Amino acid sequence: MLVNPDLAATLSPPVMEARRWIAETTFPPERPLLNLSQAAPVDPPPAPLRAAMADIIQNDSSAHLYGPVLGLQPLRERVAQTWSDAYGGTVSPANVAITSGCNQAFTAVVSTLAQAGDNVILPSPWYFNHKMWLDMAGIGCRVLESGADLLPDPQAAASLITPRTRAIVLVSPNNPAGVEYPAELMQAYFDLARSHGLALIVDETYRDFDSRTGAPHNLFQDPDWDDTLIQLYSFSKAYRLTGHRVGAIVAATDRMAQVEKWLDTVTICPNQLGQRAALWGMENLGEWLAGERTEILARRAAMETGFKKLPDWGLLGCGAYFAYVAHPFDKRSDAVAKSLVQDAAVLMLPGTMFGPTRDMGGSGRAENTLRIAFANADAAGIATLFERLSALTH
Amino acid sequence: MLVNPDLAATLSPPVMEARRWIAETTFPPERPLLNLSQAAPVDPPPAPLRAAMADIIQNDSSAHLYGPVLGLQPLRERVAQTWSDAYGGTVSPANVAITSGCNQAFTAVVSTLAQAGDNVILPSPWYFNHKMWLDMAGIGCRVLESGADLLPDPQAAASLITPRTRAIVLVSPNNPAGVEYPAELMQAYFDLARSHGLALIVDETYRDFDSRTGAPHNLFQDPDWDDTLIQLYSFSKAYRLTGHRVGAIVAATDRMAQVEKWLDTVTICPNQLGQRAALWGMENLGEWLAGERTEILARRAAMETGFKKLPDWGLLGCGAYFAYVAHPFDKRSDAVAKSLVQDAAVLMLPGTMFGPTRDMGGSGRAENTLRIAFANADAAGIATLFERLSALTH
Repeated sequence: MLVNPDLAATLSPPVMEARRWIAETTFPPERPLLNLSQAAPVDPPPAPLRAAMADIIQNDSSAHLYGPVLGLQPLRERVAQTWSDAYGGTVSPANVAITSGCNQAFTAVVSTLAQAGDNVILPSPWYFNHKMWLDMAGIGCRVLESGADLLPDPQAAASLITPRTRAIVLVSPNNPAGVEYPAELMQAYFDLARSHGLALIVDETYRDFDSRTGAPHNLFQDPDWDDTLIQLYSFSKAYRLTGHRVGAIVAATDRMAQVEKWLDTVTICPNQLGQRAALWGMENLGEWLAGERTEILARRAAMETGFKKLPDWGLLGCGAYFAYVAHPFDKRSDAVAKSLVQDAAVLMLPGTMFGPTRDMGGSGRAENTLRIAFANADAAGIATLFERLSALTH
Repeated sequence: MLVNPDLAATLSPPVMEARRWIAETTFPPERPLLNLSQAAPVDPPPAPLRAAMADIIQNDSSAHLYGPVLGLQPLRERVAQTWSDAYGGTVSPANVAITSGCNQAFTAVVSTLAQAGDNVILPSPWYFNHKMWLDMAGIGCRVLESGADLLPDPQAAASLITPRTRAIVLVSPNNPAGVEYPAELMQAYFDLARSHGLALIVDETYRDFDSRTGAPHNLFQDPDWDDTLIQLYSFSKAYRLTGHRVGAIVAATDRMAQVEKWLDTVTICPNQLGQRAALWGMENLGEWLAGERTEILARRAAMETGFKKLPDWGLLGCGAYFAYVAHPFDKRSDAVAKSLVQDAAVLMLPGTMFGPTRDMGGSGRAENTLRIAFANADAAGIATLFERLSALTH
């Protein structure tokens, strides 16, 4: 079969692979699967938002029609105002594009920056869909292995820059590592990118669950932030809208003319209901979202407490939706993850999905680690997780 | 600003460009704009479908969550069964992927076939987003100018094949030309593609409005259709779901493993509500859709009658949603289209958006033609169109 070799060489979708593991397994009623694989709320949006969406479906004809490629104007305006307030800088509606989820935001902005043969600096552990996009587009991936604290070193990044480097990608709070990048580190990357004429792409999908109060960085306070910074966001986690596919890009207005070409060609416009739901959420669910954040921070604390009682395991990073852990087994993480489905009815994703394995030049961390999407589990679920892990190794 | 030169060189979105023309114009109440630019139903889905969608929003939690990358299983099954019946061949659910609209279906399948430096054969007039995707992906476009009947000649296509050709693209019923490709022509392209080991991509977005009864081609009856044929479809027009972004790919199961990587990376999954709405439509709106087809065929007949009374104009093609016409003015079509907004309060898209201009090696047809998305206008609207055009030239 005729196949683009760049796509053929790309990793298969990790979440679909993990779904196949559980599809092949029978879980007894007394020990149901605890699925900690995907960063996805398990409950639907709160009832008032569902009611608002149903009303839109019945009464707002425009919600069924094509809309502007770059998104619903009131949503762009709301994001611009909220961002200006939250980050202490100036973001205008023309700096905002709405996308069919944050993955699409990433693929669109990278397409505005790089063509096949160029390269992009990507810290590891990486978010796998970022790596997959670079691979399938024929864009080189300059892997920047982060330190023991799971933070990538800007000096090491500088040494990876080549004449064909187009961007540096950061994710904070990090997927998969959970760590919140300090404001000073973000600034160092911004300065590095600007000094080399590169774009700094910052994926803040998990910003609503950052444990810090106030702006997590000061990059938008630079009056010329848009010459370097491209920020990505997702409405999926905050308002439980994963199934509706709504994300955002914040970038220079000049870049938006290029983003518009790409989004028009790939999806014409983001779906209209999801955009209206996101706007309704921003307008009405501020207090509810604050409660969600508090709950997720409590789950995070439960993860930290739980791993203190499991000395064979190492909690390397924990925050937002994720814990990144070193497992105690004498097996590769992908084999461990499969075993955990069988032996503990727990699904986590292996480090091999998030970073270079030894045969790709990695340090061995990919083989030794697992990602736990703990925010999907409530307190009882987290208690169950530790019971099952404890039973395995004791 | 750092920009991918392939994207920078790509045409801007034609529909957004046309929207800017009308945004700059004031239309008096007695002569409102007649917008015939985009193939988009102007009414929302029928009330029973809207009610079903509102019920799903309120009561089906899974409609708010991530789903399978390749789409909702019952929808894939329904498409497979309906296609098998309609085309007289064997299409299995594993041959079907659901996408975020038919544009995404095209970009995904081309990505499975070609990388930068490869090329694809594209008849002109083309659907502009097809051309834009090839341009921005660095894939060469071998332009096949269709004949006076707006049908592309397979022998001319054969002469364009190079060692790096990966696919031939056909759209039938055609956008922008309106013509329905005869089954024998489709077969000739299938045979040509197969004999050279190329994919034949057939976009049948407008299949529900074909004037012919029975299967429009016999390609699915070949037991090995999937070694060559890739078919694309859209649910947008049939069920008035443009704002919900739902399309489909029908292709070999092996190819779906590659499609899955691309779709996962770009959007994770199609939005869940749109998929459920498409399924509900297929299950419940067959009779309603037959009525829609009858209405659109009546509009087509009104277009044919109307142009007979306008001898200065030439109706080159007419069918599905579109009429493709030669204008009588001594100006380029893009200037004509802009003038028509001012002088007749009618918006059509110029041929320059659909084919190579003379400076790109075109025959001059792009400069001399306009596309009219007549299916958007009811009988009164079509009557208004001819009054206004008649007033211009008489």
